Amino acid sequence: MGPADGLAPPANSLAAAVLAGDRLSLARLLTQVENDTSLGRIALDQLFPYAGRAHLVGVTGSPGVGKSSLVNRIAQALRRPERGQLRTVGIVAIDPTSPFTGGALLGDRVRMRDLAGDPGVFIRSMASRGALGGLARQTFGMVQVLDAAGFEVILVETVGAGQAEVDIARLAHTTVVIEAPGMGDEIQAIKAGILEIADILVINKADRPGVESTERSLREMLEMGYPPRHPKKQFALEGQAAAWLPPVLKTIATAKTGVEDVVQAILAHRIYLEQTGEWQQRQLERLESEMEILVQVTLRERWRAALPDGVYDETLARLCERKISPYGALERLLGDR
Amino acid sequence: MGPADGLAPPANSLAAAVLAGDRLSLARLLTQVENDTSLGRIALDQLFPYAGRAHLVGVTGSPGVGKSSLVNRIAQALRRPERGQLRTVGIVAIDPTSPFTGGALLGDRVRMRDLAGDPGVFIRSMASRGALGGLARQTFGMVQVLDAAGFEVILVETVGAGQAEVDIARLAHTTVVIEAPGMGDEIQAIKAGILEIADILVINKADRPGVESTERSLREMLEMGYPPRHPKKQFALEGQAAAWLPPVLKTIATAKTGVEDVVQAILAHRIYLEQTGEWQQRQLERLESEMEILVQVTLRERWRAALPDGVYDETLARLCERKISPYGALERLLGDR
Repeated sequence: MGPADGLAPPANSLAAAVLAGDRLSLARLLTQVENDTSLGRIALDQLFPYAGRAHLVGVTGSPGVGKSSLVNRIAQALRRPERGQLRTVGIVAIDPTSPFTGGALLGDRVRMRDLAGDPGVFIRSMASRGALGGLARQTFGMVQVLDAAGFEVILVETVGAGQAEVDIARLAHTTVVIEAPGMGDEIQAIKAGILEIADILVINKADRPGVESTERSLREMLEMGYPPRHPKKQFALEGQAAAWLPPVLKTIATAKTGVEDVVQAILAHRIYLEQTGEWQQRQLERLESEMEILVQVTLRERWRAALPDGVYDETLARLCERKISPYGALERLLGDR
Repeated sequence: MGPADGLAPPANSLAAAVLAGDRLSLARLLTQVENDTSLGRIALDQLFPYAGRAHLVGVTGSPGVGKSSLVNRIAQALRRPERGQLRTVGIVAIDPTSPFTGGALLGDRVRMRDLAGDPGVFIRSMASRGALGGLARQTFGMVQVLDAAGFEVILVETVGAGQAEVDIARLAHTTVVIEAPGMGDEIQAIKAGILEIADILVINKADRPGVESTERSLREMLEMGYPPRHPKKQFALEGQAAAWLPPVLKTIATAKTGVEDVVQAILAHRIYLEQTGEWQQRQLERLESEMEILVQVTLRERWRAALPDGVYDETLARLCERKISPYGALERLLGDR
């Protein structure tokens, strides 16, 4: 295991312990990465050559659709002894709860109850942070650590529509979008943005009223013209491999109904990605996105450190008095005048 | 109207036409701002001294809770002739739909049907963009234009949990969070992050089953310890003004039920903000946030323009081969080695 030209991390380092399979070291390193410490950065550097093999699966949907339950069920299904190829599973749950309420810990405890005692599963919750790009950077780092630690499938669970989902699509090889019945009366266009990033659509809580209308509207949106993520690539491959059409699956996670179909779709999507070359394409996009975020955060940190004392506060004060405009403030802060 | 020391924008400029109340110019300027053109930036600079008086109200919630309907009803209620003080209303609806589907236009058309023909209301939808900080910058700009144009209440409607909501809270004086019944079985911690930014909680679709349990869980969360946004300030003001406790209101937007209570709460919250000095505090946070985003976007643009040809692509290629790590790539891209 490990790359041909990669130097192994120093013995006794956190990275070496993580590669050796030590779970306590893994948990400690994830905390370092979440807090963006220099120890964490060094270990990320050392582990990077060992990462790149895991299947990254993003799971997203609005609050209340049952994401956590379904993620737990998917993990359990991947760990069932009956399955020919048992896969190890890492879960990163991005929890919009603040540190104040301890919600992330609560979420972990609920999850642990379902998956406790299986050494092939590792679960980590992360409270989402407000800093621009901060959450994405932390998530990239956590996923990279779990990847290097040898977890074969990594489920990344997030709440929300919009930016968070787009970020997930950039991070993941396979994006699972979960809906629930009873939201069919919203303007359907709302769903179009979600459809563009979905590789697999799941209607959870499928025992609830309205499931048929939710399924119908999702299928109609798909038929109206599913915009492929990589239209050029798919065109080039015409005749070689069929384009991936996102399946619409129904589940009742609490009753474990339909979960196996979701797992099969996830595994089939990986085979599709590998056969069409999209796997490599998504790796590239993911790494580019990570690189961009690192650059932006670092540029900001360096600018702030180089700014003379008082300039920031003074500029902000003049801005608040509306004596300068935001673009005027920008020029001062960047030393343009 | 206008600041004492502000120079009026040049005659015949887009900014002057907007200040004179020309609606077509307003629409054209908003397009320039959305596309971040230099014409748009110049006008934003010219209009900045005229902005800062509008009451900015963020309205957020998951897809399907009925945000658009409720925003329309709030606008209608603010425009009712019976109301002593008629207020002009601007609406910025951030639509997560891609340009591909034309969803933003669809949303505008639906809204126009309800509010058509009232010159005191101006509605603009904006498709959310993927770029880091891009959406926030565009939204700040649009709100500033509507503010300078004299709209007294500006409703900013967004979908989503997490980052989008935090950004709204930074932008708005008053944040209205909308829930709908039937999501009570989600881990309650999900709601804690939302509660922290909510000034007013609304349970829409209150004729649906489960409304009591949704209301109960929201009130329990509030009682468990509502974390004030500015604890120091509230402590300092103890005895002078009571802290704001977010009301939990019930509406049926489609039947116009309960909307007047929401409007009263919004207007009461403004009075609270002004009396406690929080109005100024939120203005400051908003402008600081805008300044930060401008700085970050500009730093990135300048860095990219200064980077020699080929370095970016070459670094990305080596990263994808895992010959360098993300932090190694960062050092190359920033010229550290």
